[in-house]
Amino acid sequence: MHRRHLLAGGAAAIGGTAVGWGTRGLRSEETSPAAVAAGEAVTGGETEPFHGVHQAGVVTPPQAHTSLLGLDLVDGAGTEDLTRMMRLLSDDAARLTSGTGALADTEPELAVSPARLTVTFGFGPRVLRMLRPAFDPGLQELPAFSLDRLDPAWGQTDVLVQVCAEDPVTVAHARRMLLKDASPFATTRWVQEGFRRARGTERAGTTMRNLMGQVDGTVNLPVEDHARLLWSEGAAAAFDGGTFLVLRRIEMDMVDWDRTDRVAREFTVGRRLSDGAPLTGDAEFDEPDFEATDAVGFPVIDPASHVARSRSENTDERFLRRAYNYAMPTGESGLLFVAYAADVERQFVPVQQRLDELDLLNEWVTTIGSAVYAVPPGCVEGDFVGREMLNLPPPTAAEQAGAGNRTGGRA
Amino acid sequence: MHRRHLLAGGAAAIGGTAVGWGTRGLRSEETSPAAVAAGEAVTGGETEPFHGVHQAGVVTPPQAHTSLLGLDLVDGAGTEDLTRMMRLLSDDAARLTSGTGALADTEPELAVSPARLTVTFGFGPRVLRMLRPAFDPGLQELPAFSLDRLDPAWGQTDVLVQVCAEDPVTVAHARRMLLKDASPFATTRWVQEGFRRARGTERAGTTMRNLMGQVDGTVNLPVEDHARLLWSEGAAAAFDGGTFLVLRRIEMDMVDWDRTDRVAREFTVGRRLSDGAPLTGDAEFDEPDFEATDAVGFPVIDPASHVARSRSENTDERFLRRAYNYAMPTGESGLLFVAYAADVERQFVPVQQRLDELDLLNEWVTTIGSAVYAVPPGCVEGDFVGREMLNLPPPTAAEQAGAGNRTGGRA
Repeated sequence: MHRRHLLAGGAAAIGGTAVGWGTRGLRSEETSPAAVAAGEAVTGGETEPFHGVHQAGVVTPPQAHTSLLGLDLVDGAGTEDLTRMMRLLSDDAARLTSGTGALADTEPELAVSPARLTVTFGFGPRVLRMLRPAFDPGLQELPAFSLDRLDPAWGQTDVLVQVCAEDPVTVAHARRMLLKDASPFATTRWVQEGFRRARGTERAGTTMRNLMGQVDGTVNLPVEDHARLLWSEGAAAAFDGGTFLVLRRIEMDMVDWDRTDRVAREFTVGRRLSDGAPLTGDAEFDEPDFEATDAVGFPVIDPASHVARSRSENTDERFLRRAYNYAMPTGESGLLFVAYAADVERQFVPVQQRLDELDLLNEWVTTIGSAVYAVPPGCVEGDFVGREMLNLPPPTAAEQAGAGNRTGGRA
Repeated sequence: MHRRHLLAGGAAAIGGTAVGWGTRGLRSEETSPAAVAAGEAVTGGETEPFHGVHQAGVVTPPQAHTSLLGLDLVDGAGTEDLTRMMRLLSDDAARLTSGTGALADTEPELAVSPARLTVTFGFGPRVLRMLRPAFDPGLQELPAFSLDRLDPAWGQTDVLVQVCAEDPVTVAHARRMLLKDASPFATTRWVQEGFRRARGTERAGTTMRNLMGQVDGTVNLPVEDHARLLWSEGAAAAFDGGTFLVLRRIEMDMVDWDRTDRVAREFTVGRRLSDGAPLTGDAEFDEPDFEATDAVGFPVIDPASHVARSRSENTDERFLRRAYNYAMPTGESGLLFVAYAADVERQFVPVQQRLDELDLLNEWVTTIGSAVYAVPPGCVEGDFVGREMLNLPPPTAAEQAGAGNRTGGRA
């Protein structure tokens, strides 16, 4: 099994087995049990490969920190500008994720600890419409949801760059290098920062909790469904192996949540706060029993609870979740809901429509930002992300060789 | 040697020896070499003791994340309100740092991973003037420095709460609990968030780099100088074992720094970028040789360089540095310079005055926020931070016993 596929593969994959951390680039003495026991383990050298059939950062076990960069192409920019930008940023990403400074990195000493850095690119609907129809995989903006209170400050952009790493210095440095190289071509509309538990705080594979204290993300997409429900195939020439990303900035009303007791909280979600088990079960990954009733005949899991409303009879209405918490210095906090699916309209929209119609949790959560992106397939060394969608020829053998020994110039 | 005293004790203590991480509260099988090797090491249970002669968070080896909370007492609040607030917040801190939820914690499941959480309290000059003169250790606001461009948004507050932990979720949760309990007594003027390398990214004891890429903090206060230059003695009744904190928010002009080549950068600081060694030396902790000249007779370390200007013949002009990086989503970045000293006027001010007069680095750094705080001594179980300064009797044996088994009510 490819390491990438170890992520969050439903109960079978995440309910106890350790997730394999990448260790490429690490000298073995640095992670030997003796070194670890002496408090000298050094994990900053761990890498996640940038090149591959799919982009990294999708099925990659989630790192502790993310910085989501929402970029808009400058006025008048076309596919040529986009091409130049993607060449530059892909080269930056390949170097930074391997622990090498970006080309002409101004602080190369900050780049030596990739700490499982991944850089993932996505194109918004406006960019897709710039492509020839044959290369547009057909992503539509989400339909309006009645409860959304969207702030354009967190809205749809032309390009998304998702930067994730275990180390906040690594994220800050990579972000700066990427935004600097993007600046001739695109302006930064927003940066959304998120976090999970630090690497090693919890047992690997533990489902995250959101800031309301709930276990969040128990139901995820098992690896056996990735081919059908995660990776695109046949949507457009040159998009096979890509996927779509839904980003929703979900603000939590923590002041009112604080006034809500634990019984009401568990009733709202349909799961126990202590361990995330459904109210009808004993453990997090037990299947909820929506037929079970209590002594007076009421359902144990309320039909309006979050777990009941998000569930569907249609097994296609599922997606890969990879969310992060956010907590602003100004006090607002919530969830950066990030989901990946091969078909947003078929897999994600029906679920969100059900929740928009009825979900007890809506009392405390409000989506204030929303965007969708097409995440192109991955690329090989010397190539750049999005090349096939831009209908450009693959790199020559010389270009690939040049990239391989890290002397390749930027075309 | 007490664990707390292992921090940053100059070359002798930090130049190679591993810093001992607290492990109280951890089951040994969770950090056994075998568990670590299997990727199942769980470090979230590590604790730093809240109670002690000194407050934690001063000589504690710096954790990866900080959240500095600047609070102002509400209009009309006096020492009684301050007392009530400090009782509450000390109780919160004692519980949260030990991995227990705050009393009536609304999300206790987020409190189970203290991850070396420390909570450190400081009083600003206005609060000190509220105390009886015998209990005021005499802290003055810093004199004006000509190059400062102070923004009141980051200015002096009545109270500082420094929250540090290895885990960002832990920091976010502790911050929320503390601000909630402080809210009847104080408003939040600012929250300043900072970060260093994640736990385990680098070898323990590695001097941090700032976002300009420089090794930052090589010269620190060795443990043998703590009694004389870190911990207050005799400044005021009830302040023995306390210290003073200087917080300076130093913005970096990264755009212009990017235009500066490595030779100029090293000349500016007087140290090599690669390893932080002085330009006259071979390794980070070598003493700079300010007399050394190059082939044409110029000094190797320029007398206007940062390392030359910050050095003093007077060995009292030193302090304990515990800085953090900051990088705002809006692009501004810099350093949260945090320093501790037994006497700010004698130890810190002369250094800053020299740098203000002349320091090549001033071309790229500007202090935009500045504040000073008196950090009271630590407290025993059942007691609260600042009690002696507020001239209140120590806790009774019953109060201490109550706190010991965590059933003590809040008076």
